Amino acid sequence: MTAAALASAAFTSTLAPTSTPAWAIDAIIGAGRRMDARGWVPATAGNISVRLGPDRIAITRSGTHKGYLDASSVMQVDLAGRALTPAKPSAETGLHCQIYRLFPQVGAVLHGHSVAGTVLSMRGGDHIRFAQYEILKAFEGQTTHDVVLDLPIVENDQDISALAATIEPAIRGVLPLGYLIRGHGVYVWAGTMETALARLEGLEFLLACELERRKLAT
Amino acid sequence: MTAAALASAAFTSTLAPTSTPAWAIDAIIGAGRRMDARGWVPATAGNISVRLGPDRIAITRSGTHKGYLDASSVMQVDLAGRALTPAKPSAETGLHCQIYRLFPQVGAVLHGHSVAGTVLSMRGGDHIRFAQYEILKAFEGQTTHDVVLDLPIVENDQDISALAATIEPAIRGVLPLGYLIRGHGVYVWAGTMETALARLEGLEFLLACELERRKLAT
Amino acid sequence: MTAAALASAAFTSTLAPTSTPAWAIDAIIGAGRRMDARGWVPATAGNISVRLGPDRIAITRSGTHKGYLDASSVMQVDLAGRALTPAKPSAETGLHCQIYRLFPQVGAVLHGHSVAGTVLSMRGGDHIRFAQYEILKAFEGQTTHDVVLDLPIVENDQDISALAATIEPAIRGVLPLGYLIRGHGVYVWAGTMETALARLEGLEFLLACELERRKLAT
Amino acid sequence: MTAAALASAAFTSTLAPTSTPAWAIDAIIGAGRRMDARGWVPATAGNISVRLGPDRIAITRSGTHKGYLDASSVMQVDLAGRALTPAKPSAETGLHCQIYRLFPQVGAVLHGHSVAGTVLSMRGGDHIRFAQYEILKAFEGQTTHDVVLDLPIVENDQDISALAATIEPAIRGVLPLGYLIRGHGVYVWAGTMETALARLEGLEFLLACELERRKLAT
Repeated sequence: MTAAALASAAFTSTLAPTSTPAWAIDAIIGAGRRMDARGWVPATAGNISVRLGPDRIAITRSGTHKGYLDASSVMQVDLAGRALTPAKPSAETGLHCQIYRLFPQVGAVLHGHSVAGTVLSMRGGDHIRFAQYEILKAFEGQTTHDVVLDLPIVENDQDISALAATIEPAIRGVLPLGYLIRGHGVYVWAGTMETALARLEGLEFLLACELERRKLAT
Repeated sequence: MTAAALASAAFTSTLAPTSTPAWAIDAIIGAGRRMDARGWVPATAGNISVRLGPDRIAITRSGTHKGYLDASSVMQVDLAGRALTPAKPSAETGLHCQIYRLFPQVGAVLHGHSVAGTVLSMRGGDHIRFAQYEILKAFEGQTTHDVVLDLPIVENDQDISALAATIEPAIRGVLPLGYLIRGHGVYVWAGTMETALARLEGLEFLLACELERRKLAT
Repeated sequence: MTAAALASAAFTSTLAPTSTPAWAIDAIIGAGRRMDARGWVPATAGNISVRLGPDRIAITRSGTHKGYLDASSVMQVDLAGRALTPAKPSAETGLHCQIYRLFPQVGAVLHGHSVAGTVLSMRGGDHIRFAQYEILKAFEGQTTHDVVLDLPIVENDQDISALAATIEPAIRGVLPLGYLIRGHGVYVWAGTMETALARLEGLEFLLACELERRKLAT
Repeated sequence: MTAAALASAAFTSTLAPTSTPAWAIDAIIGAGRRMDARGWVPATAGNISVRLGPDRIAITRSGTHKGYLDASSVMQVDLAGRALTPAKPSAETGLHCQIYRLFPQVGAVLHGHSVAGTVLSMRGGDHIRFAQYEILKAFEGQTTHDVVLDLPIVENDQDISALAATIEPAIRGVLPLGYLIRGHGVYVWAGTMETALARLEGLEFLLACELERRKLAT
């Protein structure tokens, strides 16, 4: 990146830009390929981020296909969502930043659109309840299948600040599973990308099971 | 290609043939592999094209499997569907040409057969309605999920001119989604192959969601 | 293969053994990988063959996984099903031979077990009817979607001679689609392996569509 | 591994540790990739083992993703489940050991979580009955489709000793299919990893068929 390119970018943050470390780019590219292979990031849906420091994350840029990411698909923003490298952030960057602000121990955030999550979220209600699944043990703090956990569903909103204000009460406190935006998709997070991907797989497995159960005759 | 081979081909266009550029062949082969991996081009179904100029496109030949294309699988036609290189065009080439004629900004057209699209198209009606899906924002001109968009369904016809005449009124005007031929499959298009593939993924995601929703008990 | 190994094999045919040509082994291995990727050859199910001459075919041996074939997985038999190379033929070799005997123009036969075919075959009836699908044009002699074609279902039987006797009347005459054995799977064939694979994909697409249609509320 | 690392590990078995042979690591890694490709080991679910000798097995460690195993993901335990190499065994190691103790001819055990198995197991009942499937012949001792076989379902329990006590009567005697833990997943086993994988594929195929059948209108 040239000094001219940097100078011409509309930076609004006071943090100095730095180049994104290779581990962060590799983690984001790998997660995108995995999510694409499962069909969870159709078109240019979804976004993927990792924490680079207390006030800085690396995140996929607006409009990229998550199955075909490269280094140029990744940008940096501060925790207010302001660009630290010259690119246009996706509107949903604000939802990633919200999670990093609320949970200092979080190192990676994933957002995908699956058929199961989308369909179930459009059935009404403000949560999906999971109980008696062994895979619930894949979520933080869970030691048994003999538990009831709720995945919150929030209403979709193109005003990301308004959406974030709806999400915040739903995810404060003990919330191991993530959340679902109606007609839209899931957000999950964890200390590392590896754990975040495992959470996403666990949650999508639960959603797939619930969808199948609702198709069976009683 | 030898001069003899060219001379023996039954050219009916007055445009001079030229060799197909590598970027066009690569775009078509790559799209075919992607569509095949998703199960959208069974047997020799589907066809794929890119615009080479104002009056010329590159398109898959008749009878090829879209998951195993190579340079010999691609031919050139003019916008009336007449062969510019020596090979037999698929009957549906005319539907590609129609889109390129109607929309000068279009650079790529994709046609696939998915289970979801085929099954939904055979349920009757002249459209499938999508509403409240975040992924609708993947389509041109859409800025919110809070919208209602209809995918037109037209009756299948082996007379491609007759079929094209049915399609034209359905796709003139503002039509971001594409169209569906009953018992047959979808057509989508965009300025570039990359965007056309994203549109196809977005549309197939919507069709998969709708199919799942119709299986659920009320 | 040593002379001793050959001598010790229980040959019952008077045709001399020859080594299987590389094209035949490659065609069989490739078809197996393709069928495995689609989930149509679970466990050691399925079998795959190509014609080597008027009275000789190459076919997968008994008990092999079709996704992991190599040259040692392929043997030769005559059209009565007798081993021409030292290995144990699968019991269903007789059904392949029946097709090659009945149809001299056939060059490849595929048998797979799909979830859709198995489930639909167990619903009763002696055929599955397909109509108004564009993909019906992938089958020999079909030029329009506006046609009704029946896929015969025959009762399963571990006595392969008895099973073959049941199949023969169902497949003599004009039968472009193949046949289905109840609770078991489909057989398809064509002049070449490439065409046989396209037929299998077309038929499995039709079966998948029919299965989905039967899950929808009326 | 250094002598110090070995000395500091909390060994409780009197068997001497040895390095795990490459064939065992390769078999476990390969099985994990296969199961992951099919979607049967979401998050860190599932576990995989092979027998190394009369009183020793190699098994995946606790908390690993089965699609991304390497040599460090595999540990050794004795048939009482005590670590022979320095790592923490998964809680479910005890269920693997139970199978190896009960069946001296068993060489490999697989445990996975599929959507079909999980959903069907949560429908109540203490078994799933399979009949008239050709693929039943993939299971030991079966020579015909014309048979009725039951897959036992046991209640899930985080107390592995209690769970094992529930399982034992269900799997003693003639039990070719494996067993299913409610809301949890299947266990299968065989003389070799190749055969165990074929059994798992056969069983998952049967479960997928049964799930589809229960979605169809009568």
